[in-house]
Amino acid sequence: MKLYETRLAPNARRVRMFLAEKQIDIDCIEIDLKGGGNLTEEFKSKNPFAKVPVLELDDGTIISESVAICRYFEEIQPKPQLMGDSPLDKAQIEMWQRRAELGFLFPVAMAFQHCSGFFEDRMTPRKSWGEDNIKNALGYLKFIDKHLSKNKYLSGENFSIADITMLTTLDFAKVVDIRLTEKHANIKRWYELVSARKSAQA
Amino acid sequence: MKLYETRLAPNARRVRMFLAEKQIDIDCIEIDLKGGGNLTEEFKSKNPFAKVPVLELDDGTIISESVAICRYFEEIQPKPQLMGDSPLDKAQIEMWQRRAELGFLFPVAMAFQHCSGFFEDRMTPRKSWGEDNIKNALGYLKFIDKHLSKNKYLSGENFSIADITMLTTLDFAKVVDIRLTEKHANIKRWYELVSARKSAQA
Repeated sequence: MKLYETRLAPNARRVRMFLAEKQIDIDCIEIDLKGGGNLTEEFKSKNPFAKVPVLELDDGTIISESVAICRYFEEIQPKPQLMGDSPLDKAQIEMWQRRAELGFLFPVAMAFQHCSGFFEDRMTPRKSWGEDNIKNALGYLKFIDKHLSKNKYLSGENFSIADITMLTTLDFAKVVDIRLTEKHANIKRWYELVSARKSAQA
Repeated sequence: MKLYETRLAPNARRVRMFLAEKQIDIDCIEIDLKGGGNLTEEFKSKNPFAKVPVLELDDGTIISESVAICRYFEEIQPKPQLMGDSPLDKAQIEMWQRRAELGFLFPVAMAFQHCSGFFEDRMTPRKSWGEDNIKNALGYLKFIDKHLSKNKYLSGENFSIADITMLTTLDFAKVVDIRLTEKHANIKRWYELVSARKSAQA
């Protein structure tokens, strides 16, 4: 099994941290996004959307999309459970996971694409749209700070994939100058707790 | 159990179609998005993100986010299975579901937000960004047409939630003038197959 990924991409870290929680060791192959390593015919034959990470099974089967890769590992090795146990638990983790994605990961990704110039050879950035997304991402942090005043982790008492998504995005968000401040006391408490996990080094 | 939704919102239809496949009947309460029915304190106490659909269980527990709602029903009533069976099947359906969302649903949503003026009282639309997203959505259709030349459904031989996401988005995409043409013979074959399901009327 091989994982094609880009060390600094937040989605790739999402998968690495998920695997580290499950103590699954896997060969990682670095794809140079900035240099267009994802745009080669060879890579696009694995993932026509030219995105990392991509999991290649030993028989050549491909699974792309970070959460789909995580789902595969959750199913083949359920413990420790990161995507929930009971129907309600699974649904609520999926809800917090998607809220973290829609409310924070996507605005941060938009801000990165439209404000950093990283992909300006491949798209037309609209800086003001990126800036609107920074505002939206900060609005989400305000909401999450309130939520974390009453919850240990995003989905209640148990650490889950939703916390991984939030942590990896929060660390990445520094590139668009989104940082925790004194307004985010509850997120800071949670951030220290989650960052202290060994898997956060992955 | 109650489902707060907006009849014409593609995400709400996604959930209705999923429930219809499972022959689950549920009380639906219409929220008037255009009139700001999602912005009331009462609705925001159910979903602080002010989005439909929202599922309220009999004990008042809330599940928001379409796919989280679907996940709940998949878990409490697995048959007919719409989110996969084996670990690989579950992962590949999640992959096609997320590809449909990232490659098609989100660009269509961006195009709608930035080109239709529907939410212009709540955001600043950038028309040229919306137009770029229409191009991206059309690029995705080109890819999917090729994929469907070799696959009955998005994730191979079995109908799944990924097909529901694609169908409901394709129908919604007419609002931004994205329509199937003679270039999309394979999608048309799939579209007729999937649209003929009784659940497509939901």
